[in-house]
Amino acid sequence: MANSQMALVLERKGKLSLREIELSNKIGSNDVKIAIKVVGICGSDVHYYTHGKIGPFEVNAPMVLGHEAAGVVVECGAGVDHLKIGDRVCMEPGIPTTLSKASRLGIYNLDPDVVFWATPPVHGVLTPYAIHPAALSFKLPDNVTDAEGAMIEPFAVGMQAAAKANIQPGDIAVVTGAGPIGTMVALAALAGGCATVVLADFAKPKLDIASQYQGIIPCDLNKNSLPEMISQLTGGWGADIVFECSGAAAAWKDIDRILRPAGTIIAVGLPISSVPVDISTLSTKEIQIKTVFRYAHQYERAIALIASGKVDLKPLITATFSFNEAITAFERASLGLPDDVKLQIAL
Amino acid sequence: MANSQMALVLERKGKLSLREIELSNKIGSNDVKIAIKVVGICGSDVHYYTHGKIGPFEVNAPMVLGHEAAGVVVECGAGVDHLKIGDRVCMEPGIPTTLSKASRLGIYNLDPDVVFWATPPVHGVLTPYAIHPAALSFKLPDNVTDAEGAMIEPFAVGMQAAAKANIQPGDIAVVTGAGPIGTMVALAALAGGCATVVLADFAKPKLDIASQYQGIIPCDLNKNSLPEMISQLTGGWGADIVFECSGAAAAWKDIDRILRPAGTIIAVGLPISSVPVDISTLSTKEIQIKTVFRYAHQYERAIALIASGKVDLKPLITATFSFNEAITAFERASLGLPDDVKLQIAL
Amino acid sequence: MANSQMALVLERKGKLSLREIELSNKIGSNDVKIAIKVVGICGSDVHYYTHGKIGPFEVNAPMVLGHEAAGVVVECGAGVDHLKIGDRVCMEPGIPTTLSKASRLGIYNLDPDVVFWATPPVHGVLTPYAIHPAALSFKLPDNVTDAEGAMIEPFAVGMQAAAKANIQPGDIAVVTGAGPIGTMVALAALAGGCATVVLADFAKPKLDIASQYQGIIPCDLNKNSLPEMISQLTGGWGADIVFECSGAAAAWKDIDRILRPAGTIIAVGLPISSVPVDISTLSTKEIQIKTVFRYAHQYERAIALIASGKVDLKPLITATFSFNEAITAFERASLGLPDDVKLQIAL
Amino acid sequence: MANSQMALVLERKGKLSLREIELSNKIGSNDVKIAIKVVGICGSDVHYYTHGKIGPFEVNAPMVLGHEAAGVVVECGAGVDHLKIGDRVCMEPGIPTTLSKASRLGIYNLDPDVVFWATPPVHGVLTPYAIHPAALSFKLPDNVTDAEGAMIEPFAVGMQAAAKANIQPGDIAVVTGAGPIGTMVALAALAGGCATVVLADFAKPKLDIASQYQGIIPCDLNKNSLPEMISQLTGGWGADIVFECSGAAAAWKDIDRILRPAGTIIAVGLPISSVPVDISTLSTKEIQIKTVFRYAHQYERAIALIASGKVDLKPLITATFSFNEAITAFERASLGLPDDVKLQIAL
Repeated sequence: MANSQMALVLERKGKLSLREIELSNKIGSNDVKIAIKVVGICGSDVHYYTHGKIGPFEVNAPMVLGHEAAGVVVECGAGVDHLKIGDRVCMEPGIPTTLSKASRLGIYNLDPDVVFWATPPVHGVLTPYAIHPAALSFKLPDNVTDAEGAMIEPFAVGMQAAAKANIQPGDIAVVTGAGPIGTMVALAALAGGCATVVLADFAKPKLDIASQYQGIIPCDLNKNSLPEMISQLTGGWGADIVFECSGAAAAWKDIDRILRPAGTIIAVGLPISSVPVDISTLSTKEIQIKTVFRYAHQYERAIALIASGKVDLKPLITATFSFNEAITAFERASLGLPDDVKLQIAL
Repeated sequence: MANSQMALVLERKGKLSLREIELSNKIGSNDVKIAIKVVGICGSDVHYYTHGKIGPFEVNAPMVLGHEAAGVVVECGAGVDHLKIGDRVCMEPGIPTTLSKASRLGIYNLDPDVVFWATPPVHGVLTPYAIHPAALSFKLPDNVTDAEGAMIEPFAVGMQAAAKANIQPGDIAVVTGAGPIGTMVALAALAGGCATVVLADFAKPKLDIASQYQGIIPCDLNKNSLPEMISQLTGGWGADIVFECSGAAAAWKDIDRILRPAGTIIAVGLPISSVPVDISTLSTKEIQIKTVFRYAHQYERAIALIASGKVDLKPLITATFSFNEAITAFERASLGLPDDVKLQIAL
Repeated sequence: MANSQMALVLERKGKLSLREIELSNKIGSNDVKIAIKVVGICGSDVHYYTHGKIGPFEVNAPMVLGHEAAGVVVECGAGVDHLKIGDRVCMEPGIPTTLSKASRLGIYNLDPDVVFWATPPVHGVLTPYAIHPAALSFKLPDNVTDAEGAMIEPFAVGMQAAAKANIQPGDIAVVTGAGPIGTMVALAALAGGCATVVLADFAKPKLDIASQYQGIIPCDLNKNSLPEMISQLTGGWGADIVFECSGAAAAWKDIDRILRPAGTIIAVGLPISSVPVDISTLSTKEIQIKTVFRYAHQYERAIALIASGKVDLKPLITATFSFNEAITAFERASLGLPDDVKLQIAL
Repeated sequence: MANSQMALVLERKGKLSLREIELSNKIGSNDVKIAIKVVGICGSDVHYYTHGKIGPFEVNAPMVLGHEAAGVVVECGAGVDHLKIGDRVCMEPGIPTTLSKASRLGIYNLDPDVVFWATPPVHGVLTPYAIHPAALSFKLPDNVTDAEGAMIEPFAVGMQAAAKANIQPGDIAVVTGAGPIGTMVALAALAGGCATVVLADFAKPKLDIASQYQGIIPCDLNKNSLPEMISQLTGGWGADIVFECSGAAAAWKDIDRILRPAGTIIAVGLPISSVPVDISTLSTKEIQIKTVFRYAHQYERAIALIASGKVDLKPLITATFSFNEAITAFERASLGLPDDVKLQIAL
């Protein structure tokens, strides 16, 4: 039950091909077959291309890339009732085992046996057709485009962070790190109830892109003291939440100074190694730290926010390539140009 | 330590005077003296005027009306350090006893000994000057007007409801009852993270006013079935939250049908007598009911949302009267005209 | 894939037989086959016997009774890895569909398509062998007997109530209604962190049984005012939590008087029809009401509490019958004798 | 308004005197005067004696020691209504400013201006009489002794940790560090709903003392692997909560291995400097870290648990000295003998 189709294949570290590859064609009764329309390029896709591995996951065999995807349903399994042929959908790329204890608890993102697109050895979806569980395929409303649909995956990371933060309406938040994920987190935090998000980074072009959004106040760390800015903004009280999105150990130093008593740190950025954390000083304010891993239950919420107009991700799609240009797109993405936020490939 | 000043005095049920009255002039070390600039007319002010009482609170002596107020600090007690003369402020009208158990727990709105403006026998602030604890007087940023400042009090009711709802980013909410409070709740719920609020009422003019806001979907109950509209909007799942703001027993009937499993009802409207609640049916979905009483810790959050542009209350101020016209304003407010949302008096 | 085995069959309202019946014998790869050892008699079993229906669930065909069960694994499906032949287990009687939205969220007890033992038309397990998903079969430690294992199901109802209550260590709780469920709730609340549980009822024998447990204070409603007792116990502040387990409308009247500001009502008892709830008065204390439906994720926790010695359910097993005496046991249970708490049948 | 009374005075680092000292004798209207009966010796008292400072707090002038105290009310201010002469009480040693933002929010333990007994330059209460706010003085029931009353302060630290942990009934917890605070935390966690607490340390005598309590399983780290023990106990899932009470950086290494997905770390022990925390690994399980600082709102809960018999602190009082022997008691405490848990001084 496999057939051959074109795909963007990472043959090995540093070597991409756009070629035919055998992929499973078996539709289970709860699956749908999707004609892929748009796939965004994620930092992890690029990292597998340039480094051949991420943590314990190593590319040891040719693997199709791509996991930020939207498409159209072209076939439904017999047990599928909430989708029909022609529905436009976006898809959660991680398939958990439904019987695991984590899945039963509703924290399926923490299921250790999850099968995740474009994470070795699992193929991604930079290819014309993919099979996927209907329960993880979410219908896009008419006013949400395919390109926006392919943005739901990275935005879901921001949504997970915002959901974990238990934002109280009118909170003041800080996001440290203005890359694509930091920006997604800032937008999710604003949509999720924050009055203001101070977005801090050393990279001026990134801050310029993000601060086009109402509610985001840029903090150029080359010129400004973040603690001083927050103190002024909050009358000396401190921010309610810090979303640490840089993964830099430096961001953890003195993080207590920008937080209010009983404030919350959401650790989104993943430091390469352990970071020194000053537990004793954090304790004097009873600051808590929450970590996040991918997302669970965020797709429908993310789609709802985009459909209602509260979140507009379109300005973050800074270039679109055709499927034929997929390798070019990856080469461009690997440059990490300051004005590039999200590159997408349209099939 | 009292002096005589002009005030809008409710002499008794049905009888208002704009006249001199003796009011305390004693500034404690933690108090500020405020020149009142704008006072909104609340439904409770009107109700005391027309009925002479609300529940156990009865007007037995002349009482100054007004508790939705903003003004300018003209004098500071010796112990005040976060405000200075000239600061524009809005004020929480309820003064709790700081040593009560409720206050110590941070739920000062539930302190049984709270002293609340314009709740018999406590005077309100429809008068040129008022003394108030600095800790309950909140500085208005430059981009928030006095008129908006006087809207913070009713908006804080909406904020309290939104805070209690533990909104998850992207929630779908329903507000039943489109009066001023229902509208405030809808705006707070949107600002607090809801993707969409369906606002249901029988009064078309009220729905028209509220649905000028992006994110609010009106449901005219004369023509539409609320359960059907919600089912369609949520794919049969149900709304995450219902804010019941009508106080009508009818709104509680079949309320489970519009809620999702594990959904939440926030009871904001206060029914005159007990309402029949179908506990057994609510149980099959593990629906919870939360009640709210005034507000605590919401002023700064409300101001932050207005200052950041996330909430715009100005369209709800539908008429402004001078202090000399205060009695006229109350007569107008007592008519309950469908196009009137909030009437204010500028001093 | 069915075979014939002896079972206690409810032929129709009022008619029980102990006879052979065809039952499925198909073991899926994630299932286990269990030799049933002990089955407790639940009020719902008795109600189907005496009334032929509960709410929408009606006995229209012969149905095996029993859903409070423990037994021994005698066969394992190929995919089962956490259980082996010879393991003693107790079982959750409700099998949800794993792909439903409620199940994915972790609230599988609210899955509308759950298949629940001894709920028409689904057979129960008063029969020597049953097939069940391994994921819903929980190993009993050596120091937990089969009889205790069969008590986990009703205790899980108490655990769900206690879990929903967000008990803070040292809370003071009230349980209204001292039947088996009220007693289970009281024990779960104590094990879950309450310092004291006041258990209120009119039935002296029930109170006598429950008050043998340290931490449970009986309140005989024939002689005592519950509000007065709570006021005295809490210095006028009120109880933190009321678990309403009687299902009586009278228990809801003045319930605010026994609760502290920001207190919680857990509605466990299911009133036959709607009860009048005084929303306005509850609001002055911001009291919340939570409802519960069966249980989710409670079995392992319940077993852990029994194994560690924190909870002892053995005194509540007031009589044990052989399988041959099963009909006699049901006749006895239908009498509702005051000294009977839990009757069990040992196979 | 001061008078001279005997007191245990820390003159400077290493020098104690039992001598007369001038102490304030002013009773405010909301204060009570208390005849001190029992004072426990805290590690911080000893540390000031042996080191002369803790963090930023330095002994620069003679200071009375002692903050774990119980006594009898001998005089009441005019505004005191919940206490009367003769009431036995224990006292919270930290007096916050009621108007601070932290106090208003109910997190008065985080008020930066708190005045705390025996924290330089504030005098403690190892002296026959003390004046204290009635709101921070808690009546002891008849069945709670003065000695137990003086244990409430250290137990409140454990209660705060347990309260922050949001224990679900039946949770499995680990406490790392079996000193007095670790033991208090373990007892609070058990009383607060945990089924079992695994208490880990290298010091066998400390483990022996703690494991006399039902529900506490000792883990002697000289012989056992904590991760292996937890894996076995939880079927490979992991503990729900780790209370880190050792303050040792080593305890933070591999802490993820003993926790379940979505588990919680409560940081109670205060490391001397920053500890390396592996954020990325913690993230794969979405583990959260909460810090605690002293306690708020725990005294009444702690007293309730002791009064109801759920917690017995008496075995932890390992020696009692007379007031005349106070210096001897401190010398003994400074030895840190393995069999000494809590030393008390009776006045």
